[in-house]
Amino acid sequence: MISRGRKPSSELPLPMKALVHIRLKPGVLDPQGAAIGRALTQLGFEGVGEVRQGKLIELELADTDRAAATASVQAMCAQLLANPVIETYAITIEE
Amino acid sequence: MISRGRKPSSELPLPMKALVHIRLKPGVLDPQGAAIGRALTQLGFEGVGEVRQGKLIELELADTDRAAATASVQAMCAQLLANPVIETYAITIEE
Repeated sequence: MISRGRKPSSELPLPMKALVHIRLKPGVLDPQGAAIGRALTQLGFEGVGEVRQGKLIELELADTDRAAATASVQAMCAQLLANPVIETYAITIEE
Repeated sequence: MISRGRKPSSELPLPMKALVHIRLKPGVLDPQGAAIGRALTQLGFEGVGEVRQGKLIELELADTDRAAATASVQAMCAQLLANPVIETYAITIEE
């Protein structure tokens, strides 16, 4: 499915970009990661240890202030993006 | 589901860690990202532009050579981790 690479809502890219890395907390079972590890071994890759799968969410933001953008993305993580019971998140802001 | 934080296969962590960021290519429709964007707007977050969701895969590797580890993870991406038709990947090696 290919779209024309344009957002329907606006024409220009927004000034800030936030990268959110969402990982399962250590000790939380990761069946997807384990399945990837098994598949890699079956494909003949040797020396593969633990494999963990997380999420990467990229957001364009209209904020122009880095601190405000970070606070806003932190609130997004707490309210929607991450599950604080089993996941941790790390936020990187790019301008 | 909480395990004891130990791999069943080995006791010690392996020396190298690879981080693989897998993203949809620009222009490829991302319904999950779009759903996150709509949900954020409904929660009252303003100024959120395009949202894209990707994958983050972390692997422990027994390699001790950085170049060999990168080559190995590149082969894993090409053969299993990423779909080269619609996704791009970036590899980061940590020691």
